[in-house]
Amino acid sequence: MNERPIIAVTLGDPAGIGPEICLRLLREEALLKHCVPVVFGSAAILRRVAGHTGLAFDAPILPEDGAGGRLRVEVPSVLDLPLPEADQIVPGRVDPRCGEAAYQAVIATIDAGLAGRIDAVATAPLNKEAMHAAGHLYPGHTEIFAERMGAERSCMMLTSEELTCSFVTVHVGYHEVPDLLSIDRILEVIELTATAMRRIRGREPKLLICGLNPHAGEHGLFGRREEERLVEPAVAAARARGISIEGPLPPDTVFLPWRRRAYDAVVCLYHDQGHIPLKALAFDSAINTTLGLPVVRTSVDHGTAFDIAWQGRANPNSLYEAVKLAARLSRKED
Amino acid sequence: MNERPIIAVTLGDPAGIGPEICLRLLREEALLKHCVPVVFGSAAILRRVAGHTGLAFDAPILPEDGAGGRLRVEVPSVLDLPLPEADQIVPGRVDPRCGEAAYQAVIATIDAGLAGRIDAVATAPLNKEAMHAAGHLYPGHTEIFAERMGAERSCMMLTSEELTCSFVTVHVGYHEVPDLLSIDRILEVIELTATAMRRIRGREPKLLICGLNPHAGEHGLFGRREEERLVEPAVAAARARGISIEGPLPPDTVFLPWRRRAYDAVVCLYHDQGHIPLKALAFDSAINTTLGLPVVRTSVDHGTAFDIAWQGRANPNSLYEAVKLAARLSRKED
Repeated sequence: MNERPIIAVTLGDPAGIGPEICLRLLREEALLKHCVPVVFGSAAILRRVAGHTGLAFDAPILPEDGAGGRLRVEVPSVLDLPLPEADQIVPGRVDPRCGEAAYQAVIATIDAGLAGRIDAVATAPLNKEAMHAAGHLYPGHTEIFAERMGAERSCMMLTSEELTCSFVTVHVGYHEVPDLLSIDRILEVIELTATAMRRIRGREPKLLICGLNPHAGEHGLFGRREEERLVEPAVAAARARGISIEGPLPPDTVFLPWRRRAYDAVVCLYHDQGHIPLKALAFDSAINTTLGLPVVRTSVDHGTAFDIAWQGRANPNSLYEAVKLAARLSRKED
Repeated sequence: MNERPIIAVTLGDPAGIGPEICLRLLREEALLKHCVPVVFGSAAILRRVAGHTGLAFDAPILPEDGAGGRLRVEVPSVLDLPLPEADQIVPGRVDPRCGEAAYQAVIATIDAGLAGRIDAVATAPLNKEAMHAAGHLYPGHTEIFAERMGAERSCMMLTSEELTCSFVTVHVGYHEVPDLLSIDRILEVIELTATAMRRIRGREPKLLICGLNPHAGEHGLFGRREEERLVEPAVAAARARGISIEGPLPPDTVFLPWRRRAYDAVVCLYHDQGHIPLKALAFDSAINTTLGLPVVRTSVDHGTAFDIAWQGRANPNSLYEAVKLAARLSRKED
């Protein structure tokens, strides 16, 4: 497959900034050397938001006919998912109709991915409250993708210029983390990270892994030797499979500037171990990827920004980066 | 007391970079408007290191006569703690005689502080291995100070240009943290932090406090409601005492650039919650302070750097900052 990958892009919540950043994306020519983006969502909403913002909207509109086979598109396009009451949607308002539309766009991209109609998915932000009001009680995108794609093993990875982190555990309480750590799970995340970074960098990546305790336990002085019992065997197994990885290191020394430059990604054992430095260093520029899915999925790292929706002021760069990363990760030849 | 505070400065491990940064300190005139530093350690070692490095050494030498009463010094001085075998010490080598000397300097500053002979202490780095070889089995400075000063309540604070963090728990295993959190302990650390920051800033500080769980628990979705049960009551009690504090916030949003600029200090619940962003943002420029001691104590945040000892290449800035911070924190009038 030497064609450009087709990246399905969800519109996100119609009342948020998703439509306007999708309108900009459809006209961003620099992306075309990487991929062909296809926005999945209501063309009527895009038309309304184009009117509100003065942004042009002249992309071809494909009907959602549900037919099989890879989409035949050469230019950025819209796959129309009609929203009958599109003219009643108010920017910045939580609306179950918007929650439903956002959810259905996600489902449509997943099904298109599983059917081989597109190569990867990038998601614009949805509003959790609106989606819950529509009856879809997921904590977020990740869980919809993992469930509907039936992924056997997956993990979250956040990528930015400054720093890339993947996570052994994510949305669990602080106290639950130690019991969720196992050699197998840590090894799984190391392998998923190595595979993803190999595609992103185009070479063998150099990985780091954090310990769990202060000073990585200082030889058993703090903690229950999670470093020796769990992390070290996983690192040894990963190395035996040819992966370059250092650690477990004291968590506070992993993110020193020289280490960030010398290594490609950090495997973190829990949410805040990686989210704290990522947000401190790269605040809202990170791209969220779910590794291990049968179809690549990336996401912007910002919300629906209801306060500035439909004004044309939203910054589309995070979406561009998410689409480019989806394209890079979906290259089958790697 | 409108005199300049007298800051006792330990020499640190004689075989490390302590002596050379103390030599530079003794001639750093910019410090004299803040305080009068007195180096506690072997004058013979200082003389040898001056010879090795070409650094000047002409400070007055006070004998350690153990007499009471505030030291009468107007210029940077050395309080000589003789090290009989000073001529046998080799730079960069772990030596129990050096460990003993480093330990005795710490003890001498503590006793001088408790006796009112000096106003505050700043410590140069000691080598834990050498100190242990000398039979003093402390994890570090903090524990020696806390034990010998009999502090009822104390906590660690790290200060840098970019960020200041204080800690509810420090050198304990990851899994022990939840059980060590209590409303009283959190309130204690908030109060110690507010008092210290008031002296540092010369006004009422604005504090933040982190939650324990990802997203600060998201209303009980993750964790055991530590935010609602423990942090919120402590915050309410602190506010009732007039302290300005916001939180518990999601830990990964506390360290965003705009928040770092808008607030004076962050109360962290565990070691890596604050050490990770501090080292990522300020690597080795942070100053370590033990709050709550009867005598103020600050410390450089670097080690003995045996690899470059006695070469005159060590950067003394962290020691200067530790001395200045000790001077500011010891102002009795605040």
